[in-house]
Amino acid sequence: MNKKQLQELLYSVRDGKLEISDAIHALSDLPFKDLGFARIDNHREIRTGYPEVIFGQGKTPAQVKKIVKFLLSRGNNILATRVNADIFEEVNKICEDAVFHETARCITIRRREPEYPETTIAVVTAGTSDLPVADEAAVTAEILDNKVTKIVDVGVAGIHRLFDRLEEIRKARVVIVIAGMEGALPSVVGGLVDKPVIAVPTSVGYGANFGGISALLGMLTSCASGISVVNIDNGFGAAYMASMINKL
Amino acid sequence: MNKKQLQELLYSVRDGKLEISDAIHALSDLPFKDLGFARIDNHREIRTGYPEVIFGQGKTPAQVKKIVKFLLSRGNNILATRVNADIFEEVNKICEDAVFHETARCITIRRREPEYPETTIAVVTAGTSDLPVADEAAVTAEILDNKVTKIVDVGVAGIHRLFDRLEEIRKARVVIVIAGMEGALPSVVGGLVDKPVIAVPTSVGYGANFGGISALLGMLTSCASGISVVNIDNGFGAAYMASMINKL
Amino acid sequence: MNKKQLQELLYSVRDGKLEISDAIHALSDLPFKDLGFARIDNHREIRTGYPEVIFGQGKTPAQVKKIVKFLLSRGNNILATRVNADIFEEVNKICEDAVFHETARCITIRRREPEYPETTIAVVTAGTSDLPVADEAAVTAEILDNKVTKIVDVGVAGIHRLFDRLEEIRKARVVIVIAGMEGALPSVVGGLVDKPVIAVPTSVGYGANFGGISALLGMLTSCASGISVVNIDNGFGAAYMASMINKL
Amino acid sequence: MNKKQLQELLYSVRDGKLEISDAIHALSDLPFKDLGFARIDNHREIRTGYPEVIFGQGKTPAQVKKIVKFLLSRGNNILATRVNADIFEEVNKICEDAVFHETARCITIRRREPEYPETTIAVVTAGTSDLPVADEAAVTAEILDNKVTKIVDVGVAGIHRLFDRLEEIRKARVVIVIAGMEGALPSVVGGLVDKPVIAVPTSVGYGANFGGISALLGMLTSCASGISVVNIDNGFGAAYMASMINKL
Amino acid sequence: MNKKQLQELLYSVRDGKLEISDAIHALSDLPFKDLGFARIDNHREIRTGYPEVIFGQGKTPAQVKKIVKFLLSRGNNILATRVNADIFEEVNKICEDAVFHETARCITIRRREPEYPETTIAVVTAGTSDLPVADEAAVTAEILDNKVTKIVDVGVAGIHRLFDRLEEIRKARVVIVIAGMEGALPSVVGGLVDKPVIAVPTSVGYGANFGGISALLGMLTSCASGISVVNIDNGFGAAYMASMINKL
Amino acid sequence: MNKKQLQELLYSVRDGKLEISDAIHALSDLPFKDLGFARIDNHREIRTGYPEVIFGQGKTPAQVKKIVKFLLSRGNNILATRVNADIFEEVNKICEDAVFHETARCITIRRREPEYPETTIAVVTAGTSDLPVADEAAVTAEILDNKVTKIVDVGVAGIHRLFDRLEEIRKARVVIVIAGMEGALPSVVGGLVDKPVIAVPTSVGYGANFGGISALLGMLTSCASGISVVNIDNGFGAAYMASMINKL
Amino acid sequence: MNKKQLQELLYSVRDGKLEISDAIHALSDLPFKDLGFARIDNHREIRTGYPEVIFGQGKTPAQVKKIVKFLLSRGNNILATRVNADIFEEVNKICEDAVFHETARCITIRRREPEYPETTIAVVTAGTSDLPVADEAAVTAEILDNKVTKIVDVGVAGIHRLFDRLEEIRKARVVIVIAGMEGALPSVVGGLVDKPVIAVPTSVGYGANFGGISALLGMLTSCASGISVVNIDNGFGAAYMASMINKL
Amino acid sequence: MNKKQLQELLYSVRDGKLEISDAIHALSDLPFKDLGFARIDNHREIRTGYPEVIFGQGKTPAQVKKIVKFLLSRGNNILATRVNADIFEEVNKICEDAVFHETARCITIRRREPEYPETTIAVVTAGTSDLPVADEAAVTAEILDNKVTKIVDVGVAGIHRLFDRLEEIRKARVVIVIAGMEGALPSVVGGLVDKPVIAVPTSVGYGANFGGISALLGMLTSCASGISVVNIDNGFGAAYMASMINKL
Repeated sequence: MNKKQLQELLYSVRDGKLEISDAIHALSDLPFKDLGFARIDNHREIRTGYPEVIFGQGKTPAQVKKIVKFLLSRGNNILATRVNADIFEEVNKICEDAVFHETARCITIRRREPEYPETTIAVVTAGTSDLPVADEAAVTAEILDNKVTKIVDVGVAGIHRLFDRLEEIRKARVVIVIAGMEGALPSVVGGLVDKPVIAVPTSVGYGANFGGISALLGMLTSCASGISVVNIDNGFGAAYMASMINKL
Repeated sequence: MNKKQLQELLYSVRDGKLEISDAIHALSDLPFKDLGFARIDNHREIRTGYPEVIFGQGKTPAQVKKIVKFLLSRGNNILATRVNADIFEEVNKICEDAVFHETARCITIRRREPEYPETTIAVVTAGTSDLPVADEAAVTAEILDNKVTKIVDVGVAGIHRLFDRLEEIRKARVVIVIAGMEGALPSVVGGLVDKPVIAVPTSVGYGANFGGISALLGMLTSCASGISVVNIDNGFGAAYMASMINKL
Repeated sequence: MNKKQLQELLYSVRDGKLEISDAIHALSDLPFKDLGFARIDNHREIRTGYPEVIFGQGKTPAQVKKIVKFLLSRGNNILATRVNADIFEEVNKICEDAVFHETARCITIRRREPEYPETTIAVVTAGTSDLPVADEAAVTAEILDNKVTKIVDVGVAGIHRLFDRLEEIRKARVVIVIAGMEGALPSVVGGLVDKPVIAVPTSVGYGANFGGISALLGMLTSCASGISVVNIDNGFGAAYMASMINKL
Repeated sequence: MNKKQLQELLYSVRDGKLEISDAIHALSDLPFKDLGFARIDNHREIRTGYPEVIFGQGKTPAQVKKIVKFLLSRGNNILATRVNADIFEEVNKICEDAVFHETARCITIRRREPEYPETTIAVVTAGTSDLPVADEAAVTAEILDNKVTKIVDVGVAGIHRLFDRLEEIRKARVVIVIAGMEGALPSVVGGLVDKPVIAVPTSVGYGANFGGISALLGMLTSCASGISVVNIDNGFGAAYMASMINKL
Repeated sequence: MNKKQLQELLYSVRDGKLEISDAIHALSDLPFKDLGFARIDNHREIRTGYPEVIFGQGKTPAQVKKIVKFLLSRGNNILATRVNADIFEEVNKICEDAVFHETARCITIRRREPEYPETTIAVVTAGTSDLPVADEAAVTAEILDNKVTKIVDVGVAGIHRLFDRLEEIRKARVVIVIAGMEGALPSVVGGLVDKPVIAVPTSVGYGANFGGISALLGMLTSCASGISVVNIDNGFGAAYMASMINKL
Repeated sequence: MNKKQLQELLYSVRDGKLEISDAIHALSDLPFKDLGFARIDNHREIRTGYPEVIFGQGKTPAQVKKIVKFLLSRGNNILATRVNADIFEEVNKICEDAVFHETARCITIRRREPEYPETTIAVVTAGTSDLPVADEAAVTAEILDNKVTKIVDVGVAGIHRLFDRLEEIRKARVVIVIAGMEGALPSVVGGLVDKPVIAVPTSVGYGANFGGISALLGMLTSCASGISVVNIDNGFGAAYMASMINKL
Repeated sequence: MNKKQLQELLYSVRDGKLEISDAIHALSDLPFKDLGFARIDNHREIRTGYPEVIFGQGKTPAQVKKIVKFLLSRGNNILATRVNADIFEEVNKICEDAVFHETARCITIRRREPEYPETTIAVVTAGTSDLPVADEAAVTAEILDNKVTKIVDVGVAGIHRLFDRLEEIRKARVVIVIAGMEGALPSVVGGLVDKPVIAVPTSVGYGANFGGISALLGMLTSCASGISVVNIDNGFGAAYMASMINKL
Repeated sequence: MNKKQLQELLYSVRDGKLEISDAIHALSDLPFKDLGFARIDNHREIRTGYPEVIFGQGKTPAQVKKIVKFLLSRGNNILATRVNADIFEEVNKICEDAVFHETARCITIRRREPEYPETTIAVVTAGTSDLPVADEAAVTAEILDNKVTKIVDVGVAGIHRLFDRLEEIRKARVVIVIAGMEGALPSVVGGLVDKPVIAVPTSVGYGANFGGISALLGMLTSCASGISVVNIDNGFGAAYMASMINKL
């Protein structure tokens, strides 16, 4: 239930269109619903502008299905991240139009018509191997009602590939830059655009990459300004932040 | 030289108000000025919307003075971060109205009238010991023409202190949350506001704090969404990012 | 053999109800029993108030079975942690009423009637994915004769879910707080209750979580007081400590 | 203001002994007092049973003095940790009976008569060099109204020194064990007593000790049960936890 | 070929019992034999008193077989460590009396009669889960012609189990102490015996154990003297060192 | 397309041998070709002297095949590193003479006749287990048109094996030294030859080797001069650098 | 009091040469003496063959003086390590013949005639900067009654310097090898001698040396056998271990 | 003594121009000279092409002076790195023309006429604060007889500053790229030039820079090819390697 839905409900009560008892029922599991193994935060959208997202890692298929079922009953769009095919199979049983984004490891279900703002989010990757993280970001941004421009494989080892796409990047309202290995791309982009850059280190690489630490540290200590960083491989977090900025 | 100044110069040429030779001279050290030990990036403001900022650490007082002198000659506002009293003394010799923000370790010099947007940036700290970083953020945000609301010492160990100020925080367009030790405050704030949160870990603490690593890791792995992170103690970086967002 | 059993044996000797030779036999493998690959610490309960617990990791099913067999012969309750289905299958052969707690990865066998104290232990988790660790804690606390209140998924990103259960938590004599990711929940709980808090970091998360390090560091450097910490994912250790406190 | 004081105040209002306006004034800065650079948590004692403690590190002498002044005006006992001589000098100006515990780096001021429980807290150290941390623990435990037994230099390299004092340690209700280097003492003590053990790693050592990490990791991974751990050198935190347990 | 064998060969030459051409052939691949993928160090025994040992990890079964074949042709005892069943199967084809020590992950082949010194090596473990490392140490010590006393599961959480075996340990000429988790046992043993202690950290444990780092650091920073340390899980290295000391 | 090819094309245009429209077509995807999931850097050879190399890790077989197909259409030699059998199978479908170097995990396809310089690159390994990295280096060096001398298993534990091959090593123009465990070999070689040494740490080892960190740190802090280091297990990077030096 | 002294005392009692009361007095502070801040382990020599050594770091000059005074009263040789000039000054007041070894940071006082074994300990360093650690080792070995051969600056970057001294090193019964930076020397020495090698990493170096970690890891993961390792800069620990071995 | 000097000496002997006894004297401390605390490696130049360099850190002024004195007596150029003013003062006493390079922390003394090759070494820095490391590299390269082009402050945040100097960089035979913070510059340069790049991470930065680790890891995991890395702040090592390459 978002702010608008809540307002409408209260107006209906005021105008006598809705029985108090019905209103009470509708509000009864505000601000959260206890499912035993989880307490769904219904209040989140009112408080933060975004509905609850399901973090699939460490949850059983049965648990995810129950949470999806409840959230669907509230009329929400669904986004579940870090899910696998087993979880999707279970969710699919209760929702035929659920979409499994395989490389992104996400499930989405649309229940509300998107209201896209004019402005876009650019999702930029250093290499081809960063695509799964970019996909998680793009899927997230889309389900949160944003238009996305995806620009792939413009890493610093062939920096002219970046310049070729620079105008496109500059048109976005906020830029997500995704890179593994040394994670240098956000520094270069940050020095070239006048928009906030959200940097996502990826675990792409080997050896002294240490599962993404080298890229993470590189982005945190960037010599460019206007850059902030999210967790390693956290395409979702970057897109969520970008969506917030895009909708300001 | 910002975009507006550049446009005016070019119009003057077109309209015959400025000699070509004078225009050439004015443009001659675009896009950067080589000072021997440094190459000042004059082009930065046109490219990224913000003028060059001086990172004082590792520079001698004489070097900082020379860079300030050059930037002043271009009509820029000055911000120098990570400076000490020795550097200020030297800068003060060539600019009487330079201001030394001691706890923030910054020097600022205003040369252009501020044009504040309506919206504000909230700067929130977990503890009193985080004040120097908050001051660096506030000084930076101000010189970049933003209005700042500072809210101090509302850490999670006494979480009611935060709730008391929540309405104020929610009014800001973007929120900077600064915390040392376990760095939990951004997670709590991120779950309570519908604005982007920029988290700044500080080196406040001891032992397993490891100079801010515990706070940094805590913020990167936050269970709340809508949070991105800058380097340890990097009040400047957070404010720069926040300013970009505030002015979108 | 606990203190009470030992006293009774000695009284029996004094009162002539027990032959010295029988007493010697009963006491013969005090204070420990050598099984070749393990030396069972029979003396532990007399010394520390608790019988030996079996740490299953790194032991073969055959080894665990032999230890269980010996401990059962002493009339002890059995708790084996970090076990898998293979080990349980083996143990089950010699003890039909052995219980396998799958998510908790524990085996329990009850041989003595529980004597519960009035007071309870609260087991609180930040998320659904922390449930296996919470289960290990709950199983351990129960076999050590404690009543447990389990409160799940009240993490700081939706902190009102915590406030809803606060009264229940405050009623406990000691509180176990389990959290992965940034591990912020113990700090918040610690600032809200007047009971000792035992914090358990979990390995739930990814990237900069580093297998639970971020949560561990966060808990060690908590700004709240009255918190102490056990190893990552160590639900057993937290419950053992809590049981000691609960029975003081 | 603790619970008892609050009750008395409310009874006085009910019984007409206190003017409403005076009561309002007395309650006016509940639950916290904003000093500009700090928000004193007056509510803490009611909530957690203990008044606010001042963490001196990163605060200026002037800031600490102001906080002390305010807390004294509320009739509280004062404990300030991680302070130096400069801070004490400033505090001493407004409170002649302030006591500076030099090795413990603490200031204490007594304003309420202690009400000691019968039981004691044992503070045990592995070496002589661990004394400052032990002193911080002892000073903290005392100002929180506990009786303390201090046992020094009984580290595992000469383990008979420990056995000699074991009976004394066993008499305590809760045991704080402080050790640097490999931090093995808590494991040994934990295997010998039937009371909760709070382990404090210290930064005593060099090389692979890494400022206390080796002791910290050793304590977290202890093979003994009934041990929980606080931050490196955190004598205060251990004593606070121990006091909570001692007063249950 | 050891020193004695070399001397005999040279005497045979001097005394005319051996043709020069035959001697040349026998000496021809001194000091090493190039197998293409490996250069076997025949000279090692003369130089260091011990023949080449095969480190199986990272080698193919075929490679190990070829090295074994060559070494056997030189009349050496064979020790191959870190091998698996596949490697053994291959080796077994060329040597029927090869012995596979499964838990120790070693292959041994005896070709020379053992000449045991009078004195023994004690191999002591903290827990049952440390047995594989203890077995690697025992197998190594035996093939290097030492008598071994194995004492298992005497860790510090039940320290009386150690005291019971202390006399046996004291009789050894050198003591190998193997422990995971916090690795405290070597410190305790080191404080109780007057013989050199070689400490072996194991990767037994979880969480903050970090694959044996906690035990390793604990042993390196031991407060006891007379202890030195080898790599995590390196039972071979400890036994090799112990054998050197035992034979001095 | 390399510099020479480009020159020829331009001469053809100048001399009227090539239609402008054909030249435009030939140049059309200079400086890169966008394949959707990747942007192939055609310009690289002109800019850096070497064609694009395919980093297989994190790419699907289909993606690698498409990139190979495009690069073949440009007449390039192909080198794909970090590939597995699945990728090779796919590539093999479009190119029968593709070669799969199994231990090196590389695919090579020759399209241009090699032009070897006189001088050679020495590839030296400390142990047999370092062979896969050595093979990656050798395959890379060969496809980049260098002659390679491979010297295996001359690690410092039997240093006479190195001296035996020293003359061969000294004849090379640049030396690649590959070692795991403590990574000491480059220091020894660096002190014995008058040629640049490129050190490659490998992940061979266990325990405190930490996946190659010990070798990496050892090489970075070498007491010998004339050594520089590439990433752990990065045989490709070392050979690429060596080839650059060999062709100067 | 060592074993011999204890025996003599008991014989004297048996033979009536010593009054029981005097014997009791002499034995009264066996097995340790409580000085309040320290518990001196008189029993250590009987138990481990060596008297108590004073670890100066973290102790005040007054504390060290008191411990020295007590130990002198027992007729012991004195060794205090990690001391500074302030401590020496204090100790010198009560003992004129105390010797301050400045680079070794040790104080020694001889009270018993040395009884040197025939065999020697070799102390070998890689560089000149390792000398302080070598001096600590040599001073320790000497006061524990060993003859020492010191061989300086034979690091692997100029390995012929080592070969020149190899015969001397081989004559020792046990070899201490001290190295900073990459710590490669013990591996080379270990491959060349048939005696146990005790490796001491030093903090000599900078950057990726990380205060001695690179040398420590290198030594722990050495490819040579017969090497064990002590803490960074722990010359004392190496010499103590070496002395134990030398006297077997 | 270099190869040429050695040849001349031997020719003089052959031609009767030099007495054998004099030749013996000249060769007497070949291949090294034992100064007691150091063994000077005279043989190094013959072996590696470069004379011994003095690493000043950890050496006393007196020790450095003695080594300089000896090396001067051999007619060598002198380079001492990591020295301070105290050391220079001492060296200056025995050599008036010694030069102290303060920011580079080096002493140089020229004794042989430089023989510069035609080609140059480029020394490129990301920022002004990297200058001390660049100076160490430049001083080293110069004393080893190379011509150096220094290009300062062309970091990736303003990447057009780099393009401006690209032609100059491309003219060099080998490029040293020095950067702190995220260390991204070598990746960008490596993608733009066809010469070997030696990357030097610096400790410039704060927080998550961890004394240069972030830059180091970034360079090791660079996505560009043709890059190898030396230790943090190791300008000397980079220049030494570059000089070797420049003179091939």
